[in-house]
Amino acid sequence: MKIEHLISQIRKKKSFLCVGLDTDLDKIPKHLLKEEDPIFAFNKEIIDATHPYCVAYKPNIAFYEAYGLKGWRSLERTMEYLNTNHPELFTIADAKRGDIGNTSTRYAKAFFETLNFDSLTIAPYMGRDSVEPFLQFEDKHTILLALTSNKGAFDFQTKNVGAHELYKEVLTVSKTYKNSNRLMYVVGATKADYLKDVRNIIPDSFLLVPGVGAQGGSLEQVCQHGLNKDIGLLINSSRGILYASQGEDFAIMAQRQAKALQQHMEVELKRASLIA
Amino acid sequence: MKIEHLISQIRKKKSFLCVGLDTDLDKIPKHLLKEEDPIFAFNKEIIDATHPYCVAYKPNIAFYEAYGLKGWRSLERTMEYLNTNHPELFTIADAKRGDIGNTSTRYAKAFFETLNFDSLTIAPYMGRDSVEPFLQFEDKHTILLALTSNKGAFDFQTKNVGAHELYKEVLTVSKTYKNSNRLMYVVGATKADYLKDVRNIIPDSFLLVPGVGAQGGSLEQVCQHGLNKDIGLLINSSRGILYASQGEDFAIMAQRQAKALQQHMEVELKRASLIA
Repeated sequence: MKIEHLISQIRKKKSFLCVGLDTDLDKIPKHLLKEEDPIFAFNKEIIDATHPYCVAYKPNIAFYEAYGLKGWRSLERTMEYLNTNHPELFTIADAKRGDIGNTSTRYAKAFFETLNFDSLTIAPYMGRDSVEPFLQFEDKHTILLALTSNKGAFDFQTKNVGAHELYKEVLTVSKTYKNSNRLMYVVGATKADYLKDVRNIIPDSFLLVPGVGAQGGSLEQVCQHGLNKDIGLLINSSRGILYASQGEDFAIMAQRQAKALQQHMEVELKRASLIA
Repeated sequence: MKIEHLISQIRKKKSFLCVGLDTDLDKIPKHLLKEEDPIFAFNKEIIDATHPYCVAYKPNIAFYEAYGLKGWRSLERTMEYLNTNHPELFTIADAKRGDIGNTSTRYAKAFFETLNFDSLTIAPYMGRDSVEPFLQFEDKHTILLALTSNKGAFDFQTKNVGAHELYKEVLTVSKTYKNSNRLMYVVGATKADYLKDVRNIIPDSFLLVPGVGAQGGSLEQVCQHGLNKDIGLLINSSRGILYASQGEDFAIMAQRQAKALQQHMEVELKRASLIA
């Protein structure tokens, strides 16, 4: 997907919400467990209910891999459903991959070609030749971990490397990668006060922001420092939407949560004069 | 697998060779493409031919994921074959995963439980709470990336964080993680001159060493600085063994390569007085 298409979808829907599909058999409504593919059945209902209020879906690949072959099949079916019925929606494989060149190329094929995702999250630790293979794919987007939403982010990411923190070094160095215009970055909502510094280094890039909701990040703060002229944000919510109810009304309750977030985002977009 | 079992296998076979299963449909012998599951057929012949000379197998997960559901099935069959026929062999999922806690737990289940791997490679960028979920599994081993074999390692891993390089900070900090005795580390053979410093920080841990062969690392140098009283090394070779021949003699040629590496390792073990 071209980035212009994502931006126009955001303006049209007045939403930069990404719904994280962290689908967990222990948490989905019990009546779905009778289905032949409960994970896909759950995802389908969530997508049907929430798609008017979001612009992106982000399957968390670990949740599918944990169920082996069956989980991988559920992921394929979810992507087939999204690509067939909602090709206008941006898709993110939250996989946090990254390896030496020939291996990264394989991961790129797995997610960009076999599963036809628009984007993929990548860990930066192995450097340039672990990231550039992903950047070769036109109209595909590589979302590099910069500053993650968890506590462990303080172990290494915020430590000083020379004049500035490691996450800033990642941002700065990654701008020199070939086809770096295809990069986006993960910056956790729980670290919204860092967003000003992030925007100084990468003013134009899209940020994928996890951590609003269950992890405690604030939507207002993220918007205040993170929005740019092209909006430049995708804010993810997973558990807060998926498990708003664990009863038969789960889809309608998920829809309400998604709609509430969309309405909040609309307010923020107006406040920033990014929509009329 | 208990670490004592791995050590006793190494002493028995006089080998600390790990065979990397980076199985690529474009490189395996053409006659295997007629098989119902060419990837598994290839792996099975490689395992049958090389197992007397190695102590571990390391499927590179990207190569399986690239083929989607079919690839995942080949991986499952390969693990079933290894677990059934060669339970004495150590298995490594080269997956380079790592995510926030609840997601890391899912990856741990995928590889340690669903697929029954003995160990898994992990990227350290997200810190403590992304690694500790893997360390909860008894007799399972988490292999943290420290210093990788690729050029991109110099982007971040060797940059100074305070008094020392980032990879040393990763080694040092990870020792404070809960159940850190279940950690092993990736240190590339192409950076053998760093091994002395690595051993100063983690004298007792096992190291998984990629980069001998195709990537240019030297077995002697790795042994000189990397061996410890429990051997403490697993040296991986992938392409050099798997694709020693692309004809019908591929298995016998793979065996020769594996045997040559084993014999070289035996010399090094004797030189270091680790075996009689």
